[in-house]
Amino acid sequence: MALNLVVMAAGKGTRMKSNLPKVLHKLAGKSLLQHVLDTMAPLPCAARIVITGHGAELVETRAQGELAFVRQMPQLGTGHAVQQAVPALADAPTTLILNGDTPLVRRETAEALAAACGGTKLALLTVVLDDPTGYGRILRNAQGQVLGIKEHKDASETERQIREGYTGMMAAPTAHLKRWLAALKNDNAQGEYYLTDIVAMAVAEGVEVVTAQASSETEVLGVNDRVQLADLERRFQRQQADSLMRAGVQLMDPARFDLRGHLEAGSDVEIDVGCVFEGRVSLGEGVRIGAHCVIKDAVIEAGAVIHPFTHIDGEAAGATVGAGALVGPFARLRPGARLGREVHIGNFVEVKNSQLADGAKANHLAYLGDATVGERVNYGAGSITANYDGANKHRTVIEADVHIGSNCVLVAPLTIGAGATIGGGSTISKNVPAGQLWVARGRQTHIPGWVRPVKTKK
Amino acid sequence: MALNLVVMAAGKGTRMKSNLPKVLHKLAGKSLLQHVLDTMAPLPCAARIVITGHGAELVETRAQGELAFVRQMPQLGTGHAVQQAVPALADAPTTLILNGDTPLVRRETAEALAAACGGTKLALLTVVLDDPTGYGRILRNAQGQVLGIKEHKDASETERQIREGYTGMMAAPTAHLKRWLAALKNDNAQGEYYLTDIVAMAVAEGVEVVTAQASSETEVLGVNDRVQLADLERRFQRQQADSLMRAGVQLMDPARFDLRGHLEAGSDVEIDVGCVFEGRVSLGEGVRIGAHCVIKDAVIEAGAVIHPFTHIDGEAAGATVGAGALVGPFARLRPGARLGREVHIGNFVEVKNSQLADGAKANHLAYLGDATVGERVNYGAGSITANYDGANKHRTVIEADVHIGSNCVLVAPLTIGAGATIGGGSTISKNVPAGQLWVARGRQTHIPGWVRPVKTKK
Amino acid sequence: MALNLVVMAAGKGTRMKSNLPKVLHKLAGKSLLQHVLDTMAPLPCAARIVITGHGAELVETRAQGELAFVRQMPQLGTGHAVQQAVPALADAPTTLILNGDTPLVRRETAEALAAACGGTKLALLTVVLDDPTGYGRILRNAQGQVLGIKEHKDASETERQIREGYTGMMAAPTAHLKRWLAALKNDNAQGEYYLTDIVAMAVAEGVEVVTAQASSETEVLGVNDRVQLADLERRFQRQQADSLMRAGVQLMDPARFDLRGHLEAGSDVEIDVGCVFEGRVSLGEGVRIGAHCVIKDAVIEAGAVIHPFTHIDGEAAGATVGAGALVGPFARLRPGARLGREVHIGNFVEVKNSQLADGAKANHLAYLGDATVGERVNYGAGSITANYDGANKHRTVIEADVHIGSNCVLVAPLTIGAGATIGGGSTISKNVPAGQLWVARGRQTHIPGWVRPVKTKK
Repeated sequence: MALNLVVMAAGKGTRMKSNLPKVLHKLAGKSLLQHVLDTMAPLPCAARIVITGHGAELVETRAQGELAFVRQMPQLGTGHAVQQAVPALADAPTTLILNGDTPLVRRETAEALAAACGGTKLALLTVVLDDPTGYGRILRNAQGQVLGIKEHKDASETERQIREGYTGMMAAPTAHLKRWLAALKNDNAQGEYYLTDIVAMAVAEGVEVVTAQASSETEVLGVNDRVQLADLERRFQRQQADSLMRAGVQLMDPARFDLRGHLEAGSDVEIDVGCVFEGRVSLGEGVRIGAHCVIKDAVIEAGAVIHPFTHIDGEAAGATVGAGALVGPFARLRPGARLGREVHIGNFVEVKNSQLADGAKANHLAYLGDATVGERVNYGAGSITANYDGANKHRTVIEADVHIGSNCVLVAPLTIGAGATIGGGSTISKNVPAGQLWVARGRQTHIPGWVRPVKTKK
Repeated sequence: MALNLVVMAAGKGTRMKSNLPKVLHKLAGKSLLQHVLDTMAPLPCAARIVITGHGAELVETRAQGELAFVRQMPQLGTGHAVQQAVPALADAPTTLILNGDTPLVRRETAEALAAACGGTKLALLTVVLDDPTGYGRILRNAQGQVLGIKEHKDASETERQIREGYTGMMAAPTAHLKRWLAALKNDNAQGEYYLTDIVAMAVAEGVEVVTAQASSETEVLGVNDRVQLADLERRFQRQQADSLMRAGVQLMDPARFDLRGHLEAGSDVEIDVGCVFEGRVSLGEGVRIGAHCVIKDAVIEAGAVIHPFTHIDGEAAGATVGAGALVGPFARLRPGARLGREVHIGNFVEVKNSQLADGAKANHLAYLGDATVGERVNYGAGSITANYDGANKHRTVIEADVHIGSNCVLVAPLTIGAGATIGGGSTISKNVPAGQLWVARGRQTHIPGWVRPVKTKK
Repeated sequence: MALNLVVMAAGKGTRMKSNLPKVLHKLAGKSLLQHVLDTMAPLPCAARIVITGHGAELVETRAQGELAFVRQMPQLGTGHAVQQAVPALADAPTTLILNGDTPLVRRETAEALAAACGGTKLALLTVVLDDPTGYGRILRNAQGQVLGIKEHKDASETERQIREGYTGMMAAPTAHLKRWLAALKNDNAQGEYYLTDIVAMAVAEGVEVVTAQASSETEVLGVNDRVQLADLERRFQRQQADSLMRAGVQLMDPARFDLRGHLEAGSDVEIDVGCVFEGRVSLGEGVRIGAHCVIKDAVIEAGAVIHPFTHIDGEAAGATVGAGALVGPFARLRPGARLGREVHIGNFVEVKNSQLADGAKANHLAYLGDATVGERVNYGAGSITANYDGANKHRTVIEADVHIGSNCVLVAPLTIGAGATIGGGSTISKNVPAGQLWVARGRQTHIPGWVRPVKTKK
């Protein structure tokens, strides 16, 4: 049964103390609003309406999905917000109203809420808590029928004993909703139109008010300041960590694991403390990730070992680490780094937009940029591909079995033929034929009569 | 109303298992004692007296402020400690007695305690706890008047139900205090003079005993071992983290944030997990600090991005990162590093005592020490300023728009004129005129007849 | 009194979702099984029997100690497991039965359990918990005598109020045990032989059933999935952290400290956040370890300072840092790195299988491999020992007081005589006599007529 989905995203979030509208703040690398939209994307919606207000243009630009936007200007309360959505509502019997700042609400919960409405009843999403302080309480009669919502501040001591709180989310019969919204009044202290006033209207009309329950408080927590956002971030990270561990990934400390995106992992993957994953990362069977690695948009194949303090950022172009490869510590792979099987990239080595074929090694203090490196190449410590002439980037081709000495400069464009050797300290700017030894360096000479400088007095 | 401030700082802290006197151990980079002294610095004190004992000389050397020191040798109890302070007391009606190992006591609390004394009453600082195990309990009569303090170990079951505990801090009418101190006896098992014995004296004399309450246990927690110190460190760090978040700084994980000093931040600053800040750090609007950075004594201007694993230590000389600059990952800025706007400092690059003008770049594996670098300079991968001749440091000047190739050595003192280019692999020891290309490297030559070494058997 | 020690280690650990048998999963770098075996190693055992099953061969290969292995194939329950051990039991009156997946059980607890048995009684290891959900409950009569164990799922509401749970570990009189095991039946839903069925046999026979209590739940927690393993890892790490702090080590955050092995520390050692220690590490008095260091198999002597982001891995050969040395940030010491007193190893420097005598320095971007470096040597930024000719490794000897310039290549085998100086940018392949200056570099020349490249359109 098709739905109208309405997401309220007009708030400023004053307590965030930010130039960014509240719903664009990020949880695990994705905006609060987008979490809700992505979670609900599989729902069969006739219309997906986002109510924007503060920073509307930015929110509308950044929100992704097949969405309709309506603007609430100025912001005169939650009821006023949903009033703006009325013209955009499709002809669907149920309208589901969610908050753009409640990012972790589950799809199953939203489905249960919509089902509870079923196009005929007013369904409220509630949560049962040991300590519901701050929540509006659900008032019921002796038969358990919902009579209304009492705000925490207005509740009596007895009412405050009620542990069922209203989450701010509901599903309403679309036709009723339109009528109720039109009847809302703002004769209250704040002069605002409150969406929750429709509960009393439903009760008065004899429209049944029902509830669906959230599975935990986490999924109904909203974000009003950065302390709450950080708290929700940690809850979400812990959920992700638990889910990965149950799937067979070993985390050395689930409290020190951050995933901002999607992580796919084969069996017996181990991830040490302090690692951060972003974008889309895939880890093959038996991959081990050392402490304090930062990895974004990368594919790491089976059996590869990533040593501590490795930074992999394959953004856009991606980065690939072949099976059995060893990377780090203190290595950096940048976009377009493609390492074959058993490749070794050691400490203080940077690889950018370069392919390294199986068994190639660059173990120490080196830069490989815009290079094509053949199988079993040994790329010496301190060697650099001079890929940039100050204006353009050029390619370096190092064929199979080449041995590049230490502290060499390879001035691109350049090809070093298969099996060639470049002596340490050489700057090579012309192609080198296969199999030969070439050097480009000064002769070792003694400078006679030289005296060491002595420390000058200051 | 002026006060006498007395801070007890004579203890050894046996359970710290340290060579350092207890009050010199650090919380968030500052000694326990200095926390108390700094917090109380704004109080209008006629005298600020620190009672030293164990490691007195070191404590007196390190404590900062306009302080008088008195020594307690040997240490014969808290009453004996305060007795030593008597000669140093100024003519102020109220004497406030704090502990040098209770670092997080708030100024507002001390003020309330002093006000409760008002030069006439004996005021005790107490704390109400769900579990006051270990605290001396405040005994009161039916009218709520304080009758005394009962040590936990001496308390009856009924007395142990009392949830109000004594914190060890008090404010006393100075004249009474002198008299009471003089009357203290050490006829107890330990043979010590207890400050708390003056409570009974006050009660006996009919001097009213009143209390002021601490706002939380955290501010009255003392440090007796390193477990307690670590616990207090985390509480303090969490307080700082919350305070920054409420001011608008986004922390990815407040449990993995350390500030040992002072952090000033503009709006929409983001700080990723595992960062440590020391000294005085200023972050401009929109600055982003990546995971696992260590930053000390630095000014980072608006919009700059500090990538993960960056180490900035501007100690003494300071370090500056200009607006929109990109630094890291794996970059190190040392004292005197001054980066202009949009400067890029990339991986495995060290900058020390060098100015880089707007738009200059050193993106890979490089050292810039004692250098002045002009606008838009491109400083090649692997290039080094040889600023040290084994005895003295010299300056390298690289004027605007210079392009330094890869793996160059610039032997200081040296000036490279504006717009000049240095070919990769060159060692440059003489000044280079503006606009020209210079190289200093060997000719690329083939070594005929060479045969690759083969692996020797061992 | 000698014991039979029986450790059950046959389980697959399906919920680990792993190719590795459950008991080989690691806690703090050591397998669950080995924790139990090492803890119990000092017990006077006549036989130490490990019951293997899933992955038996691998378990038997990896388990260390004087052990007898018996295999349980297929796995038909805990009673069936212990039946397999019968032929291997020695002639000792008490048989102690532990679980290979309960790694933190204490030796004192096992001793108390064996003593409770004393060769005559059936002794069960129990634990008293506020919430014993999931544990089999210990049923007792009014006199407190054990009547049996009731599984949680079979327990009545009243029985579930019992807070004493069975841990799965016991000690039994060997002769009785053999008889009871032989009498076990598998007439239950799972068709398995349950070891706990012997409790009823003992009661029926009038053999007294007694209990010993674990000191905390942590020591009896088993591992069934990776969430539990991670939880136990953190508990164990916190235990180690507390123990070190009580011994006088300052940890900046005990929740961000990992020790997988053995750490010995002198007084006033400070360890900043995020450090990981593996293998055997020794830290001398006053050593300071900066944030985010990873240190394995190393000896760091008094007063040395290890700056943040330092990676020391002395595996097998060990690594030594001399008194007062400064290492890092971003330094890497590999096996065989031996640093003397006051040696400085700075950023982006790698040291492998090299000795540096007192006062030697390599402060920036350098590689020292297979080198012997004399006192006070200054090893320039960017300099490399070319120790590998593509087939064999050779040694570089740099005698005392040598000054190596920047970006040099030292082609091994090579000796640089005492007090010699090597000019920056030199590739040195022949021995250099003491005291002389040698260079090997091109002459600085102007390339006239050169025009900077311009950016090509794409």
